[in-house]
Amino acid sequence: MLYPNGFKKNYKNNINYGNRGMKLEEDINESNIFYQTHNIGIIHKKPVPLTIARVDFPSRREAVVREAYFKTPSTTDYNGIYRGKYIDFDAKESKSKTSFPLNNIHPHQLAHLESILQHGGIAFLIVRFTTLDETYFLKAEDLLLFTQQTKRKSIPISFFREHAIIIPYKIHPRIDYLKVIDELYF
Amino acid sequence: MLYPNGFKKNYKNNINYGNRGMKLEEDINESNIFYQTHNIGIIHKKPVPLTIARVDFPSRREAVVREAYFKTPSTTDYNGIYRGKYIDFDAKESKSKTSFPLNNIHPHQLAHLESILQHGGIAFLIVRFTTLDETYFLKAEDLLLFTQQTKRKSIPISFFREHAIIIPYKIHPRIDYLKVIDELYF
Repeated sequence: MLYPNGFKKNYKNNINYGNRGMKLEEDINESNIFYQTHNIGIIHKKPVPLTIARVDFPSRREAVVREAYFKTPSTTDYNGIYRGKYIDFDAKESKSKTSFPLNNIHPHQLAHLESILQHGGIAFLIVRFTTLDETYFLKAEDLLLFTQQTKRKSIPISFFREHAIIIPYKIHPRIDYLKVIDELYF
Repeated sequence: MLYPNGFKKNYKNNINYGNRGMKLEEDINESNIFYQTHNIGIIHKKPVPLTIARVDFPSRREAVVREAYFKTPSTTDYNGIYRGKYIDFDAKESKSKTSFPLNNIHPHQLAHLESILQHGGIAFLIVRFTTLDETYFLKAEDLLLFTQQTKRKSIPISFFREHAIIIPYKIHPRIDYLKVIDELYF
């Protein structure tokens, strides 16, 4: 079942859209705004990639996209700069209490994270186990170690508890991932 | 007249879309692909930001965006990593032989470039004077110096000839801007 970027279809009634399923994304966006307004770091979510097939112009000054298709992203969703370093990450949720399914991550994204590491950037995943309300910072190095060393289709929560860092929930910023970066990299 | 991101309307006939006016963008994308495949640097163009208002699902596995609106971008179009540094830039064209109109650049983009500099990144514009077939690398520092010190509505070409670096056109990559970065920053 295709839920592109959190768009959900209720076949009985009307269409719900917007990332209703990803509160994590809202939290990260709030944190990014906090970071920008306080001049701590400049990190943005990349817009959803779409192939635009048709645009209407109801008037000279207005344009409406009338047909567009979701593209598979070739990169991760978030990147930017912090303390002079290139930062790159993706945010994922898991409803499971015991593991994080790897079908959540496209092979392109893994390759992208690996390239970023090779080029001297800071790359990671923010993974939230929603039913446990636990949010982890998982370094791309550890993610890639797991995917390259096992054929498993999901990462058990024990791996996170051993290798990843819990990001505590705060009022501002909600997901202080830059603080984790301070601890791990500086 | 609103031409969002290069979409052009011919009111007599049909709609042309795609960045037909920006060969510079094609050239930069070719260069970015070259840089990635040769593992020189990882730079991507950000997708066009759209506010999605309506999505149809013709079948379970297909989604079509049926209504979306172009957003004013709050950042520049390109960013990535090169030699461990965060890279950020925009690409602009000018048909004029004598100047580069500053209405090409949104105040948000100037503010964004300034923030990137403050945070230790490499920020610049690639400006092509299309009728002269001259492509310049203009450091954000110089761009901001100009906009902050004058009230002029365009940058004369003499400023580019004095402060900017010409990027020669090559076969591969077409716009070797990373080579200019090597000269200026390393």
